[in-house]
Amino acid sequence: MDSIVKAGKQVFAFEEGDGKNKKLLGGKGANLCEMTQIGLNVPPGFVISTEACLSYLAASGEELPKSLLDEIDAQMKALEIKTGKRFGDAAAPLLVSVRSGSAMSMPGMMDTILNLGLNPQTLAGEIAQTGDPRFGYDTYRRFIQLFGKIALDISDELFDAELSAVKLDRGIKEDLALTADDLKEISERFLRVVQEQTGRPFPEAPYEQLILSVKAVFRSWMGKRAVDYRREFHITPEMANGTAVNICTMVFGNRGNDSATGVGFTRNPATGENHIFGEYLVNAQGEDVVAGIRTPKPIDYMATEMPDLFRQLQELRAKLENHYHEVQDFEFTIERGILYCLQTRNGKMNTTAMVRTSVEMEKEGLITRRQALLRIAPDSLAQMLFPRLDPAAKDRPLAKGLPASPGADFGHAVFDADRAEEQGRAGKPVILVREETKPEDIHGFFASRGILTSRGGKTSHAAVVARGMGKPCVAGAEGIEVNVTLRQATIGETVIHEGDIITIDGTTGMVYLGNVPTIEAEITDELNTLLGWADQEARLAVMANADTPNDAKRALQLGAKGIGLCRTERMFNASDRLPIVLDMIIAEDTQQRQIALDRLLPIQRGDFKGLLETMAGLPVTIRLLDPPIHEFLPSEQQLIKELAELQHLHQTVSGMEILSNTLDLLGDAELSAAEVAQVKSGTISSHLVEQAIEKKQTILKKVRALHEVNPMLGHRGVRLSVTYPEIYAMQIRALAEATVECVREALDVHPEIMVPQVCTSVELQYVKRMVDKIVAEVEQASGVKVKIKFGSMMEVVRACVRADSLAKEAEFFSFGTNDLTQATFSFSREDAENKFLPDYIDQVILRDNPFEVLDTQGVGKLMKLAIEGGRTTRPDMKIGICGEHGGHPASIMFCHQIGLSYVSCSAPRVPIARLAAAHAKLNEG
Amino acid sequence: MDSIVKAGKQVFAFEEGDGKNKKLLGGKGANLCEMTQIGLNVPPGFVISTEACLSYLAASGEELPKSLLDEIDAQMKALEIKTGKRFGDAAAPLLVSVRSGSAMSMPGMMDTILNLGLNPQTLAGEIAQTGDPRFGYDTYRRFIQLFGKIALDISDELFDAELSAVKLDRGIKEDLALTADDLKEISERFLRVVQEQTGRPFPEAPYEQLILSVKAVFRSWMGKRAVDYRREFHITPEMANGTAVNICTMVFGNRGNDSATGVGFTRNPATGENHIFGEYLVNAQGEDVVAGIRTPKPIDYMATEMPDLFRQLQELRAKLENHYHEVQDFEFTIERGILYCLQTRNGKMNTTAMVRTSVEMEKEGLITRRQALLRIAPDSLAQMLFPRLDPAAKDRPLAKGLPASPGADFGHAVFDADRAEEQGRAGKPVILVREETKPEDIHGFFASRGILTSRGGKTSHAAVVARGMGKPCVAGAEGIEVNVTLRQATIGETVIHEGDIITIDGTTGMVYLGNVPTIEAEITDELNTLLGWADQEARLAVMANADTPNDAKRALQLGAKGIGLCRTERMFNASDRLPIVLDMIIAEDTQQRQIALDRLLPIQRGDFKGLLETMAGLPVTIRLLDPPIHEFLPSEQQLIKELAELQHLHQTVSGMEILSNTLDLLGDAELSAAEVAQVKSGTISSHLVEQAIEKKQTILKKVRALHEVNPMLGHRGVRLSVTYPEIYAMQIRALAEATVECVREALDVHPEIMVPQVCTSVELQYVKRMVDKIVAEVEQASGVKVKIKFGSMMEVVRACVRADSLAKEAEFFSFGTNDLTQATFSFSREDAENKFLPDYIDQVILRDNPFEVLDTQGVGKLMKLAIEGGRTTRPDMKIGICGEHGGHPASIMFCHQIGLSYVSCSAPRVPIARLAAAHAKLNEG
Repeated sequence: MDSIVKAGKQVFAFEEGDGKNKKLLGGKGANLCEMTQIGLNVPPGFVISTEACLSYLAASGEELPKSLLDEIDAQMKALEIKTGKRFGDAAAPLLVSVRSGSAMSMPGMMDTILNLGLNPQTLAGEIAQTGDPRFGYDTYRRFIQLFGKIALDISDELFDAELSAVKLDRGIKEDLALTADDLKEISERFLRVVQEQTGRPFPEAPYEQLILSVKAVFRSWMGKRAVDYRREFHITPEMANGTAVNICTMVFGNRGNDSATGVGFTRNPATGENHIFGEYLVNAQGEDVVAGIRTPKPIDYMATEMPDLFRQLQELRAKLENHYHEVQDFEFTIERGILYCLQTRNGKMNTTAMVRTSVEMEKEGLITRRQALLRIAPDSLAQMLFPRLDPAAKDRPLAKGLPASPGADFGHAVFDADRAEEQGRAGKPVILVREETKPEDIHGFFASRGILTSRGGKTSHAAVVARGMGKPCVAGAEGIEVNVTLRQATIGETVIHEGDIITIDGTTGMVYLGNVPTIEAEITDELNTLLGWADQEARLAVMANADTPNDAKRALQLGAKGIGLCRTERMFNASDRLPIVLDMIIAEDTQQRQIALDRLLPIQRGDFKGLLETMAGLPVTIRLLDPPIHEFLPSEQQLIKELAELQHLHQTVSGMEILSNTLDLLGDAELSAAEVAQVKSGTISSHLVEQAIEKKQTILKKVRALHEVNPMLGHRGVRLSVTYPEIYAMQIRALAEATVECVREALDVHPEIMVPQVCTSVELQYVKRMVDKIVAEVEQASGVKVKIKFGSMMEVVRACVRADSLAKEAEFFSFGTNDLTQATFSFSREDAENKFLPDYIDQVILRDNPFEVLDTQGVGKLMKLAIEGGRTTRPDMKIGICGEHGGHPASIMFCHQIGLSYVSCSAPRVPIARLAAAHAKLNEG
Repeated sequence: MDSIVKAGKQVFAFEEGDGKNKKLLGGKGANLCEMTQIGLNVPPGFVISTEACLSYLAASGEELPKSLLDEIDAQMKALEIKTGKRFGDAAAPLLVSVRSGSAMSMPGMMDTILNLGLNPQTLAGEIAQTGDPRFGYDTYRRFIQLFGKIALDISDELFDAELSAVKLDRGIKEDLALTADDLKEISERFLRVVQEQTGRPFPEAPYEQLILSVKAVFRSWMGKRAVDYRREFHITPEMANGTAVNICTMVFGNRGNDSATGVGFTRNPATGENHIFGEYLVNAQGEDVVAGIRTPKPIDYMATEMPDLFRQLQELRAKLENHYHEVQDFEFTIERGILYCLQTRNGKMNTTAMVRTSVEMEKEGLITRRQALLRIAPDSLAQMLFPRLDPAAKDRPLAKGLPASPGADFGHAVFDADRAEEQGRAGKPVILVREETKPEDIHGFFASRGILTSRGGKTSHAAVVARGMGKPCVAGAEGIEVNVTLRQATIGETVIHEGDIITIDGTTGMVYLGNVPTIEAEITDELNTLLGWADQEARLAVMANADTPNDAKRALQLGAKGIGLCRTERMFNASDRLPIVLDMIIAEDTQQRQIALDRLLPIQRGDFKGLLETMAGLPVTIRLLDPPIHEFLPSEQQLIKELAELQHLHQTVSGMEILSNTLDLLGDAELSAAEVAQVKSGTISSHLVEQAIEKKQTILKKVRALHEVNPMLGHRGVRLSVTYPEIYAMQIRALAEATVECVREALDVHPEIMVPQVCTSVELQYVKRMVDKIVAEVEQASGVKVKIKFGSMMEVVRACVRADSLAKEAEFFSFGTNDLTQATFSFSREDAENKFLPDYIDQVILRDNPFEVLDTQGVGKLMKLAIEGGRTTRPDMKIGICGEHGGHPASIMFCHQIGLSYVSCSAPRVPIARLAAAHAKLNEG
């Protein structure tokens, strides 16, 4: 306890206290002072400072010091003058509320005592004044219970038991049915409880009541629950030390039809509309609104019912916004035609409302553009960008997995990609449910509204692809057992059959049976205005990761300034290409491989042209093939299973037994129409089966030959190009030729080539030579000048360390922080997130999952090294990030601070990134 | 061509030339000048400079410039005076040799023309002088052929055809059988060849012969072969530019019994003995020694045969060593009782001889200690440290694999570890042959003399363990197909059956059938002396990686200053512990796991005590468990196979069918003696089999649960301790208790704990708390003070980046450069070395395999960062390396330069590291 109080003022009238000094007056006290001083009609009152609390606790005597008692006394005297009432007076009794309030909101401390000052005498006065004995006794019994519990430490249950006894005796259920006499009896029973528990009668003297309450509030600061709470949430004495006590005149909204109570928002918190919003009840108390027994009226109704008070309310609204420059959520009470403001705070709104009010308040001149941008948390935009479950829906989730790609949607469950494609094409909404997904399932992704897997983490194939496509995905829902053969999934007792409707929420990881209502994404005009402002402020450009013209269009609509990463392997996975890619991989020599590549070339050229066209005027960064090629092959287990089935088919082929998946097994993409018809009609030839067996065996052999112990650190990226230069050569040629076609159509295109997994500048030289040669050939053949920027992924640690040297070859860098984080920590993401990262987070060995929050101290330091190195060689070098961190606000802030030129993220996150980029700039130094 | 020659002297008599200026005079020319000037009797001669060559080539005229011709003329005149002979004189003809010679030895340029100056007249004079027509014509025909070939560019084959024709005609096979007349005819035929090929008669004028020869030498510098050679070996003009021409008086060792020719070493190049060594032939030419037709005499015989000349030879030997301070390999000729020295160079010796001569020459005062150390390449010591194949053995290898652990040995092939143990214990030499090895094979390693695998690279289990044990290993010999069931291996047509003797050479990767003779390791007194000197010079301490007391003893004998790395997982692998480790892994809860760990504790304590005792007075660094625990489990395939067998056994158990490996399958380590007897007698109970099936199923489930996508980056090292703290707790307790036992025996022990895979200081705090707690408990219980140093492996990139923070917890660092290199390059070593690294090296994208040669620019930069960070926090911090690079000289040099305190390497490499550490210091600045 650091403050043996400096001598000085310890108690402040609302007119006196410094409205900004929460540390001294607590949050609530400061708020009351501020409201009073800006001219709102706050019921008179005063605050006992936190320093008074600390000095009381430090002295650890039982009694309050004389100086404090004197100050309280003086303030009470002043209150009596302001209100024209007197404390303990039977005719016009002054009643007050007593509340605690420290610098930070902190549950577990003493709450509120209402109606303090009541005793048999003052109660009689109240009843006389109001002519309402029921009101009087109700007020009284509430005071006795609150005071008993808080100031005298008597268990609530004892009071509740008495209340129940009376209700049982009267045969009633609702408190509202209690008569004045009932309440009188209850009050008397409560007084007896106090007598029994404390061994003394309930204190009747109002001053004694007040002093006991103040001491109870002070002591509650060191109560177990409060101390635990501060420890749990790391609240240090610098943040909040001691509690203040707020003493405030009671006002009643239930003094007749010229009284009311209500809550209001200065603007509509659901839509942001610039119009007062709220509800009120005539002749009622605040609790009545909460209890929900009477239906409150919309606040606009007051214009008719109490026009003058409504005008006052509108004035209050204007005063609040003009003073706070923020939408306010306030409580008011009207006592006998006089409007009191009891509390105000910043209004909590959904993001749509936040965005609208930001834009409108800026236009009204209430806030600056800077304020308009900064008051919205970038991540909160997700609410507007992805569909979400209607919070009103109360469905119980069936299972929980990892929130792998945000958004929510429903659909018929299907258990394989072909079925998904078939039904999706037929216009049916489907959710693809798999144990895990593989690249060959990609056509199923396109056709589905969402993906659910029972295995794999946030970097599983399903998760990564779904995020890229902006479709919801729940991954690794381990409670679900998927049985493809039976076409069903089991969750405990529940069975989902194919065709059953399910809903998945990729934002929370929840899975529901049936169609849970969702709220659609809503990209409003105000959002576009706001993001336009963000772009003006931001120094970082925001690009998108996009692999198809469709992705690119979406990214463009969401404001991307180009494509920062096109993963060409995604193109290889489409179902019209995969068989060719397979041929390329199992090719026994360069010549065979070249034949497959020659077939891929026109397709890839078309892909690139589509992207360049869509993004005309903006850069399109093509990353050459990155994953190890075995990722395009089926698994060893799958092949062994299929081979067994084929061999069985072969033995029984004369008997015309056709397995359900015969066409698949035979590799239908390779069959002629006649052959397909043959298979379908059951007149399948033994030759076809033999051919299929032979091919599967070749693939199996290749799968085994290509097996890697640590594929993350394996034969991939630029390393592939050293072994199989013809693959990159095809891609480079496709891009150069696509560029030529665009230039001929007078399009202003900006193609860029990016090399993955680079660890030395010699690799870049090697690929650069290939690019120069092929570009020269294409230019020669076409007569068109082709300009392609050349850059390097920075995802290998050594690349960061050797950046100065790499920058001699690379015109730009792009950080791949997913891989870089894996290499920096020596954490395999797939293994870490399933096996030990949860323990690391639980035990606070790491504060955050570094795959979600960029590790600025480790990975970030390597990035800084790389930027420094790169710009030593090439001072104006363009440097960006295209890992998933590029779409997350805290990481974007860091990217801004270390001087990146751009961030690139999945299309759906572009708006978030644009706002985060503006925040980064606005929060600078 | 950078030198349009500065005007100046272009031709230098041997007495004039600067013996150190190889650039100007060529290596050979400078050597001749130096020999002449230190008073050796060199036949008189002179050198035409490289600058003359360059200026001739630059001018590209046909003729030599007048100034050069004048200088040559003057030198020839001087030669005539020195020799008393005259060029072209019929009575006393001066004959010379003409040789090229650039600054670097460079095959492909013109070689040597002998006997220049001969023509019919001078030939007659020679014959008259020597009275030996055969000698005359032999000399003549050789001159014509050499001159024809070199100066006139006539194909050798044309001359050889004529020679063959004459031999065929005479019916003889050996040149030696040719008579004077035959040789005369050959000379005439040769002259006709020249006439036919050049259209002109053979030039007879000696001066014309000389000038033509000089021009031919000059031109040969730009000949295709020479140019190709320089390109191939990256010889730049700074290294060698142009060739000199050496003109030297001919001397003949075949002028009678007072003439001779020979070669000598100033010391014995095989043993290093300080005694002249060599051989000579009386009345013979140099070529006769090479041709091997006459058997030369050992040089000591000259003491009897030509005592005076032998004395001169001894003088020559002394002069050579006194001048060159190095063992010399020299050629000499005695012409009519006069000893000439024709050439000398540093003698090539084996390492044993190098070491002995270093020590002896230092003691003789011929060289300094610094020179004694620096003249021996540290890596060459391997020759003395590991057995090697006798170079005289000419066996043809059967197969080739990777040289995975140096040394060579033979043994009976066995195909499983149990058989190896059985036969090894019976005293039979065995070589363990496996497809690949697993930790459970470890007892087979102990029993074998060498390991041969058909799969896996230099970091495979077999390779790493064999290197640690210092046993030869050939890994990944892909040509070998191992069939354990048939107990044989097939290599093409050859079958190796169990028991067949094979020899493996782990230094070259070769595999031989039968017992190829080997030369044993020879750690001589001289080597110990030399290494003692090395220790005095070195700043780096050399420690050893050792996992058992035996390893430790060996390391100590080889001069290790402690154990820098004890891999505790090796202890877990021993066959008496593996079953307990298995129980620990499949434990379903902490309690079950603790039961297994309680059984391991005393064993581990014994291990540690053994190491501490052996290394008393020196530090012993214990690395806590590092590998992912699934490495201790059998493979999924293996388990599936065993389960199938067990299930078969179960079905047939009533029929008493016993599989050959029944005991293995049942887990014999777990059976009581009675049960074993039961199984052996065939009365195996169904219950036992069921029990075994259940256990295998549990293990299989665990294997699947623990499966990792990238085990290198997986759940291992300190990450294990976060999930299963009780494993590290057991190891820490074992070390603390072992320390107590040693202290009680009054041993001065220095235990250290090292934590693997650290990436953040919080991990270290976490383990440190565990250490402090356990040490306190052990101290409390024993009353003995326990001091254990605490340090961190530096093998994760992030650890290097955050070293300043880690050093707050760690008292020392040890770089694990194997893992660090993998993470820095994002190369999985096992995958890289099999798949793409060979392409990288072939295409010079990387100059070296970074797992063999430390990558100073990438990994090295991270190490520097880490050292800087660590010593910022803890200025005198002990920092070492325990990766395999720690045993390689170039990497040791780098470790010295960046300020490491020590290197730790496998025991057998300790001497190499000690010498390398001295080199590093001596080569400083």
